[in-house]
Amino acid sequence: MGMTMTQKILAAHAGLDNVVPGQLITAKVDMLLANDISGSVSVNVFDDAGFEEVFDKSKIALVMDHFTPNKDIKSAEQCVTCRTFAKRFDIDHYYDVGTMGIEHALLPEKGLVAAGEIIVGADSHTCTYGALGAFSTGVGSTDLAASMATGQTWFKVPSALKFNLTGELQEDVSGKDVILHIIGMIGVDGALYKSMEFTGPGVASLSIDDRFTICNMAIEAGGKNGIFPVDKTTKDYMEGRVDREYTIYEADLDAEYDQVYDIDLSTLKPTVAFPHLPGNSRTIDKVGDVPIQQSVIGSCTNGRLSDMRIAAEILKGQKVHPDVRCIIVPATQQIYKECIKLGYLETFIDAGCVVSTPTCGPCMGGHMGILAEGERCVSTTNRNFVGRMGHTKSEIYLASPAVAAASAIAGKIVAPERRV
Amino acid sequence: MGMTMTQKILAAHAGLDNVVPGQLITAKVDMLLANDISGSVSVNVFDDAGFEEVFDKSKIALVMDHFTPNKDIKSAEQCVTCRTFAKRFDIDHYYDVGTMGIEHALLPEKGLVAAGEIIVGADSHTCTYGALGAFSTGVGSTDLAASMATGQTWFKVPSALKFNLTGELQEDVSGKDVILHIIGMIGVDGALYKSMEFTGPGVASLSIDDRFTICNMAIEAGGKNGIFPVDKTTKDYMEGRVDREYTIYEADLDAEYDQVYDIDLSTLKPTVAFPHLPGNSRTIDKVGDVPIQQSVIGSCTNGRLSDMRIAAEILKGQKVHPDVRCIIVPATQQIYKECIKLGYLETFIDAGCVVSTPTCGPCMGGHMGILAEGERCVSTTNRNFVGRMGHTKSEIYLASPAVAAASAIAGKIVAPERRV
Repeated sequence: MGMTMTQKILAAHAGLDNVVPGQLITAKVDMLLANDISGSVSVNVFDDAGFEEVFDKSKIALVMDHFTPNKDIKSAEQCVTCRTFAKRFDIDHYYDVGTMGIEHALLPEKGLVAAGEIIVGADSHTCTYGALGAFSTGVGSTDLAASMATGQTWFKVPSALKFNLTGELQEDVSGKDVILHIIGMIGVDGALYKSMEFTGPGVASLSIDDRFTICNMAIEAGGKNGIFPVDKTTKDYMEGRVDREYTIYEADLDAEYDQVYDIDLSTLKPTVAFPHLPGNSRTIDKVGDVPIQQSVIGSCTNGRLSDMRIAAEILKGQKVHPDVRCIIVPATQQIYKECIKLGYLETFIDAGCVVSTPTCGPCMGGHMGILAEGERCVSTTNRNFVGRMGHTKSEIYLASPAVAAASAIAGKIVAPERRV
Repeated sequence: MGMTMTQKILAAHAGLDNVVPGQLITAKVDMLLANDISGSVSVNVFDDAGFEEVFDKSKIALVMDHFTPNKDIKSAEQCVTCRTFAKRFDIDHYYDVGTMGIEHALLPEKGLVAAGEIIVGADSHTCTYGALGAFSTGVGSTDLAASMATGQTWFKVPSALKFNLTGELQEDVSGKDVILHIIGMIGVDGALYKSMEFTGPGVASLSIDDRFTICNMAIEAGGKNGIFPVDKTTKDYMEGRVDREYTIYEADLDAEYDQVYDIDLSTLKPTVAFPHLPGNSRTIDKVGDVPIQQSVIGSCTNGRLSDMRIAAEILKGQKVHPDVRCIIVPATQQIYKECIKLGYLETFIDAGCVVSTPTCGPCMGGHMGILAEGERCVSTTNRNFVGRMGHTKSEIYLASPAVAAASAIAGKIVAPERRV
């Protein structure tokens, strides 16, 4: 039996010719990731376990992005724990306030993840890097601690779902709409512990940022990982960023999939996930009248430069509705700087938005835009669980940057203006 | 007996020909101010007292600046309280996320405060507007609630200290150094319930921003208010901002002062207030070796455009020390936008700083840069009390933007590089 793309990467890293779904393997990892919250837990576990060395100081990334700039004393202490660890072992890829960005935007930007590699991170959205043809997935902080010492970890080899993409997205329909559509179709446990392998002629038309967004939310369907084949788009992105050899894996022609889904990208519409599940999706024409009090454009899902560009194009010359706070969070310092140079930041300020320094911020209820009882927020983030951005009686509507920007202007959830 | 400048403003607003120190008066107020924290208290008191109307919807300013963008559910609820009140009474000057700035930078910028006026605010740094020749002071949230209904409040007429300024400040010595020097000289209760009246030939050389900073910290010497005479600098600042008639008051020649201090501005050096009191000041040459982990440039004391300019000039082409987080907070949306246009923001990012959206943020331990145990921060804010920016075992060193920027680069508290 042939192997899927994911299985091939796992087999290679386990030193095996072949793996099958359900098999338990031990594999080498190419990059380990933790943030200020999970990292501080991992460091404590690492110390408690009596580990005295890290396996490779160039293969660990610690990114202080969740509750930074420090939102309270506890988060300040968590950063101290990570910072002290990074100094102790001279960790190459330690990113603090001033150099950092949201981890899943930062690692690809810095060339720390590449095709064919295995990346594990103590953060569920580590699955993002599948966009580059890597196997990447979230692990617990304890597992990560062990991996920091050993350079390897265990996996149960996942089976796979195949998403055969055809056609091209219409204007103002993006990767976010693709993944919200898919999760709506298969449900939040539709890919439980499976690989979500995206393939087909439609892939070529998807930008690398669309692919990052799609893979980022694989976990929201319960997926072990999301993964795209490596093509010219992927190589172009890695060019100048990744300064080492990488390996391109392709699924065998006779690879087995639990199910195959055919998706014609040209038929998709802007899609919104209603409270309180990412799978609760509706196309924009079926949203109805949903007034909002806040719009958040950012996060590891949609805080990249192309997301900022789309938001800027829609907000240009417009004004945010007086009942709405529009909070824009460029995902990294580099993206923030590009937003200055390209005039996006000025556009945002003129429109009445605020622009935050890079941080996960409001996404998981950290800070920078927490919701009061009864408030509604349209957000480009990845989860709309009860209370995730604040009060348990607040509501989060997941959408693309285009929808979030247009909704900020309208004061309610609407399709991007320029489409009308 | 003649009256001081402050006494003259009070007498006029009380409808009296003369007032004397210690006298209790009731005076009309020209502008009332509250923020998200104090405002929510005032609104509840207003409602509990059974008030049904505000005295003048054009003379109340509500600025959501302290814990915004909402740092947690409680602060989100406080904003809802203020927002609901502002809508109910159609308050003209309600500033929320996207339009707001730090209150004491915002009100002058918007022309809401002017010479000869009385402004009371439920925030101790309301004394800032004395820079414009106004009487402005902090009041309790309960008093503010009553004033919102009646348009007046009570005062005990303060006696005064006279600061006779001569000479001119040297380069990289600023209003912040003047006030830190003064508080160091007279102590944190040196002006208890007194007016601090600044006068003399040295006034002319002080920029309006220097004067804002000096008056802002009058409260840190216990002062009831700080106040400057109105001159060309004041009028130039108000021109195009203040669209109503204002009155210029001058102290009588025979006004009585509890004490007169002569200060030759040309002799002042960059000054730093050591933990844990603003009066604990030392000139920069006596600071010694104080490594820092954080530098904060912003706040109602030093978040104005000239502060940003000084920071940018010092940080241009430099790099923040790897052990330091440098957090820059332009005080208003307008200042933030100017920083974009003038290239300051790009300079800050290139240097490895982060730039926050306008907020009081870390100043009083809100968010956006809270300190862990044992951490030291040089800060352009106004208070360095125990635990104000985080852990009770953290330390705050108050300084000017020039010193804070230079220290961010050096990793320890130093004089601005270009002076050396």
